[in-house]
Amino acid sequence: MVLYPDQSHLQRLRTIYQPSLPPILTDLSSLQAFPVENQEVPLEDEIHKLFPLTVAQPNLIFKRVSSERSDPLKIGVVFSGGQAPGGHNVIAGLLDAMLKLNRDSRLIGFLDGPNGLTKNNYTELTSEMIAPYRNQGGFDLIGSGRSKIETAEQFEALGKNVRALKLDGLVIIGGDDSNTNAAFLAEYFKRKGLDISIIGVPKTIDGDLKNRFIETSFGYDTACKIYSEIIGNLAKDALSARKYYFFVKLMGRSASHVTLECAVKTQINLALIGEEVSALKLTLPRLIDQIADMICLRAARGKNHGVILIPEGIIEFIEEFKYMIQELNRLLSHSGNESEADRISKIDLIIQALTTNSATCFSSLPEEFQKQLLIDRDPHGNIQVSKIETERLFICLVEKELVKRKNQGNYIGAFNPQPLFCGYEGRSGLPSNFDCHYCYSLGHVAALLINSRVSGYMACIQNLGKPVSKWEINGISLTKMLHLEDRKGILAAVIRKGPVDLEGTLFNYYKEKRSAWLLEDHYCCPGPIQYEGDLELVDAPPLSLTLPSNFSAN
Amino acid sequence: MVLYPDQSHLQRLRTIYQPSLPPILTDLSSLQAFPVENQEVPLEDEIHKLFPLTVAQPNLIFKRVSSERSDPLKIGVVFSGGQAPGGHNVIAGLLDAMLKLNRDSRLIGFLDGPNGLTKNNYTELTSEMIAPYRNQGGFDLIGSGRSKIETAEQFEALGKNVRALKLDGLVIIGGDDSNTNAAFLAEYFKRKGLDISIIGVPKTIDGDLKNRFIETSFGYDTACKIYSEIIGNLAKDALSARKYYFFVKLMGRSASHVTLECAVKTQINLALIGEEVSALKLTLPRLIDQIADMICLRAARGKNHGVILIPEGIIEFIEEFKYMIQELNRLLSHSGNESEADRISKIDLIIQALTTNSATCFSSLPEEFQKQLLIDRDPHGNIQVSKIETERLFICLVEKELVKRKNQGNYIGAFNPQPLFCGYEGRSGLPSNFDCHYCYSLGHVAALLINSRVSGYMACIQNLGKPVSKWEINGISLTKMLHLEDRKGILAAVIRKGPVDLEGTLFNYYKEKRSAWLLEDHYCCPGPIQYEGDLELVDAPPLSLTLPSNFSAN
Repeated sequence: MVLYPDQSHLQRLRTIYQPSLPPILTDLSSLQAFPVENQEVPLEDEIHKLFPLTVAQPNLIFKRVSSERSDPLKIGVVFSGGQAPGGHNVIAGLLDAMLKLNRDSRLIGFLDGPNGLTKNNYTELTSEMIAPYRNQGGFDLIGSGRSKIETAEQFEALGKNVRALKLDGLVIIGGDDSNTNAAFLAEYFKRKGLDISIIGVPKTIDGDLKNRFIETSFGYDTACKIYSEIIGNLAKDALSARKYYFFVKLMGRSASHVTLECAVKTQINLALIGEEVSALKLTLPRLIDQIADMICLRAARGKNHGVILIPEGIIEFIEEFKYMIQELNRLLSHSGNESEADRISKIDLIIQALTTNSATCFSSLPEEFQKQLLIDRDPHGNIQVSKIETERLFICLVEKELVKRKNQGNYIGAFNPQPLFCGYEGRSGLPSNFDCHYCYSLGHVAALLINSRVSGYMACIQNLGKPVSKWEINGISLTKMLHLEDRKGILAAVIRKGPVDLEGTLFNYYKEKRSAWLLEDHYCCPGPIQYEGDLELVDAPPLSLTLPSNFSAN
Repeated sequence: MVLYPDQSHLQRLRTIYQPSLPPILTDLSSLQAFPVENQEVPLEDEIHKLFPLTVAQPNLIFKRVSSERSDPLKIGVVFSGGQAPGGHNVIAGLLDAMLKLNRDSRLIGFLDGPNGLTKNNYTELTSEMIAPYRNQGGFDLIGSGRSKIETAEQFEALGKNVRALKLDGLVIIGGDDSNTNAAFLAEYFKRKGLDISIIGVPKTIDGDLKNRFIETSFGYDTACKIYSEIIGNLAKDALSARKYYFFVKLMGRSASHVTLECAVKTQINLALIGEEVSALKLTLPRLIDQIADMICLRAARGKNHGVILIPEGIIEFIEEFKYMIQELNRLLSHSGNESEADRISKIDLIIQALTTNSATCFSSLPEEFQKQLLIDRDPHGNIQVSKIETERLFICLVEKELVKRKNQGNYIGAFNPQPLFCGYEGRSGLPSNFDCHYCYSLGHVAALLINSRVSGYMACIQNLGKPVSKWEINGISLTKMLHLEDRKGILAAVIRKGPVDLEGTLFNYYKEKRSAWLLEDHYCCPGPIQYEGDLELVDAPPLSLTLPSNFSAN
């Protein structure tokens, strides 16, 4: 084993781990993409207008043709947005596949995200350079960034750079916005007559880059497993010390996939699911009541401990909160020059200016959160919802409610809340074996799509809930995932996000179990991710993929 | 494999894992405790006066005598204080050893901590009951508690209960205070002529129950490994996103063992070590300067990311803070009836009443922390230092300092801090193999000590940095660890805590490396605890035990 400085023993062992590939990917040279018929997806007219050249592209499958030697490929690759475990394996899979197709292929890594594409900031990636990053977390091999390619100048700069580099293809490893960007780039290059394959790879720990073609995005499995280890441990702690209520906020942006997956994995007492909150039009006081009800019920049984999961984006699903934030954004949009103290001094004026519902909502918040809503604003004057420490907000409000109930004689327990945010540690961990296999295979599919000279596709793999030997690979036209969405007042074509399906198996499983989990303690400790030993343990896919066929959470 | 409901696949696999034992513990029936000569430890006169019957007890080693059949043992066991991974294995080891000595032995588990002893709240523990708890985290088999046995009535009640149960011995699994309690109980029972063995087992994740006899307490290894996984992931995230400074507070009470171990394991940019802060008499502004200096130096190299570790107890090591807290405690000791608002309204009055140094210190704190210091008080009116969110306090103060430097033109970076507390998830995780072996062996030693009819001893194991086959077992007289300490104005006999040794190998290793780690990014990701595969990975002891002989952190 090569000793890379600063790597831990486990990191080194992982560098030489060989991820599995579906059987079709073991011999690449004879694989060619072929269109699949009858996959009509109804799309809005505006999508047809925006993507005249790529909207009608059929999805692709791969078939073996008589083996012919491939030309060397020159491919660019870029990370876009937040990290997700497995990203390095996409690059490793891409490079390995390119070299298997032709030993003279070359891979260009654009640095620090989409900015690297427009600023022509890149490095050539060799097998030696990639070696220490195999099966590792993070995006540090080439970095990432949140910049977007939107303006005509950016498109032009990028076009100039990829032309100068004579790239056959460009692989964009990103979330829904980055893959939307990939769709626009593919259309742009086709219009310009530039023969380059733009291929997207579905990345996000949030799990909401999901549709009839994408079963799950990469990184989701590892992040959920890392969070579930922590949550399972906290549940053990709650059960042993019998005095803490852990309020755990989970990363995952607006969707509640991560929260739902972790809830079922760990069987904790209560998980708020944003999509359900929205469907039932639950108000903030109603949510607080639900939590307080649970605490009172448990206290009556002598239990003053518990674990509650809160998705990072919950606030956006609470209707009156959403409206209040819109009103505040409007009221404060011209206050950019005011000092924080000035804004805070106006709290009373602001409450008067809000509509009744929003004023009630605002007034119900603890002072520090009222201030946070007035101070923490992005450069456009908008409130930064993600900066609100929801787990602490809920603790404050629940505490207040419990004091009220205690004074009324309806609660006799002790409430010791502990806030925790499961976030950054999950998106940069060592990828699970599932994510290692998945990403390594995705890299191969991306190489094959480019080798087939198609553009505007996402590398996709189906049957992910089954063993790798059953996985099926294909290319999905990016435009087939687009719809029109209101983005800051403008209708934009973007990839439709996949929220938690309230009719889906995983949510139904949770619904069936949750009343028992609420009162009794059925805590489960998944423990740390394992990489060796029992295959059921080390290769297990996420529950969201396996529950339909195997109705057991453990 | 038996299927325990609610256990994860890994938990189930762990229930059938067989921890290793040092060779001497493979045949118990012929082992007998023998005194070791020449182990004089100078003790204060007061200790001699308090422990006339147990102070002169020699330490014990075990020798094989001609095998003779042991009588059945009846032993009580209790958890005391916060959880530490491996606690269940002490009980499993104890029961297995008792049954190996005589199949008719019986184990009584006292429930919910020392209260169970005085209130006679117990359950008999059988092999079947223990089975699902083998190699598991938490203390939920019998619960724990923080109650202490201090009053004459408590001693009497306990004496009555153990007499009624006809216990041969009582095993107290706890930290320094609980083992001090064990020393007092042993002396008490000897004075009362009651023939019962009181045996302590060294438990605490903090790592400061450590002296020439105790190499490390159990739970420390697992907690450090769990925290290091999280910290390593955050470091990867910092390196990939290149925009966050993670301020990580680590559990571990006043000592900085956990912080030091995690710092060396993960090679992050800066770790504050309380013992060093105290030795160098570093003030809070000086510490803030140190952190700000690092951030400025790194910003000048284009790095606006980093990881900083802060021990939970750091504040107690900052001299002016310590004095200020003492003064505040005095000033506010009679304000128990005042409302929070009343106290806060008096901030100016309080500042005037403080000495100059303390007033300066208090005034330098952000308002929310000033309030915290006035409001959060324990029932005796004392400030609860552990409730201060030090990681957030440091972020506030560093941010203020950086704004100042920016205005002076001495800093041009962007500062995006992220606070995190690594706490409860570490003390209840699945124990590492090291802690599994260690605790299972400790349980055996406790049984042997009771079988040898000695009392006032701690079950100890030496050579822990070496493979289990080299471990040596013995019994150490608890009184040999005692000294007199000021506890709330009263000199009390307590077990002396072992702070971080500033002359020790681990700290020296950190000192040697830290200037490189501060500027360059040598981050190491230990990854999640592994239970199968490469022995070097799954059985590795903590660095604090192995660094002396093997000067490589990974």
